[in-house]
Amino acid sequence: MTRKAVVLLSGGLDSTTTLAIAKSQGFQPVTLSFDYGQRHRVELARAAKIARCLGAAEHRVLKIDLAALGGSALTADTPVPIGRSEAEMSAGIPSTYVPARNTIFLSFALALTEVIGAHDLFIGVNAVDYSGYPDCRPEYIAAFEKLANLATKAGVEGDSPFKIHTPLIDLTKAEIILQGLSLGVDYGLTHSCYAPDEQGVACGVCDSCLLRLKGFREAGAKDPVAYRDAGGPHPS
Amino acid sequence: MTRKAVVLLSGGLDSTTTLAIAKSQGFQPVTLSFDYGQRHRVELARAAKIARCLGAAEHRVLKIDLAALGGSALTADTPVPIGRSEAEMSAGIPSTYVPARNTIFLSFALALTEVIGAHDLFIGVNAVDYSGYPDCRPEYIAAFEKLANLATKAGVEGDSPFKIHTPLIDLTKAEIILQGLSLGVDYGLTHSCYAPDEQGVACGVCDSCLLRLKGFREAGAKDPVAYRDAGGPHPS
Repeated sequence: MTRKAVVLLSGGLDSTTTLAIAKSQGFQPVTLSFDYGQRHRVELARAAKIARCLGAAEHRVLKIDLAALGGSALTADTPVPIGRSEAEMSAGIPSTYVPARNTIFLSFALALTEVIGAHDLFIGVNAVDYSGYPDCRPEYIAAFEKLANLATKAGVEGDSPFKIHTPLIDLTKAEIILQGLSLGVDYGLTHSCYAPDEQGVACGVCDSCLLRLKGFREAGAKDPVAYRDAGGPHPS
Repeated sequence: MTRKAVVLLSGGLDSTTTLAIAKSQGFQPVTLSFDYGQRHRVELARAAKIARCLGAAEHRVLKIDLAALGGSALTADTPVPIGRSEAEMSAGIPSTYVPARNTIFLSFALALTEVIGAHDLFIGVNAVDYSGYPDCRPEYIAAFEKLANLATKAGVEGDSPFKIHTPLIDLTKAEIILQGLSLGVDYGLTHSCYAPDEQGVACGVCDSCLLRLKGFREAGAKDPVAYRDAGGPHPS
């Protein structure tokens, strides 16, 4: 019997690879995206298309009001950093940090997992090329899994505990890309840029674009998406 | 210096008492309510009034889409149970259980706490007269506090850890009421009923009304709110 699993899907490279891995492990994925007032809204359209193309059983979008809380360059009207070196990126938690974002996302995913009677939840967090976000670390995920089993009717009364799967957590971006390619993922569907133009074309110079391009370089593969800057990235 | 604290405020008896306690401890409360598609929407108007009357520094309402997840008599179109005995109430997790609700609420509260630069968060959970909800237990709260300190920029980089205050957790409903009365709380402002009529008048027979009325009886106090059933509750 195929088991259902909830897969958090942003439409980016990591979550798309995670979806492909969940499928390859025999799960029937129910994908979940959030409309949280993000400035890079092209993500949402990509996520829906990816869910369809990769064979999700169902795709859900939940609207939540993170922007009302304020506090991040990803939802507020402050510029996202561009052209940063790796040293600069790893020097601290960046302005694109959204307070408690993964905790909020995982909470909703947990609710959905319980509602559909599943026990498995996939999230594409990554502690290697993680851009400095605290809620992408293994100890954070372990704490949430423990919480999930204390929080819920299914965890308390059920015979099968919740499991949070983080298949990318120890992989470099290049290893993630190689694993996705081996599973047939079309990365042309994905979107990573924090500052796309109105047509959704990636900038090539924000932290997310730079990490992605570096990953493709190290994987010896060509990134199929287009970038605004025809001369390529310039992380001087 | 007065410290800010986020207080989750539903407009019910417990959260209102919690707000009064936070004030009495010298905190400057920022109250947070959720518009989550609850059927008893009178709560939201009461919460705003309570925040004003009890002197909150600020009152925020976040709209979240719990109803889109389904799975609870509090948001879905299934009847709430009425007229249950205490034995029936304590026989398991009721249909009014909302999957992962406190986890979702606490996640947003955590985000707000971080955004306003606070470190303290109050929630009026209660493990005694708790109606069988798993996410009201001390071990659940401890797990969330641990998570909060792993999840956030403030928890990781800050010098002061997050603290989740649960001043009601070990109190009976009667003890909660006595404490609130000693702090001058006007319980006529509060709303507890799961199934109010269109004017917001409480039914007197749902689990929440029955627990409330029992609390007032045991406290030797009169509940100032009106009930639909003029003959009073009939928990037989």
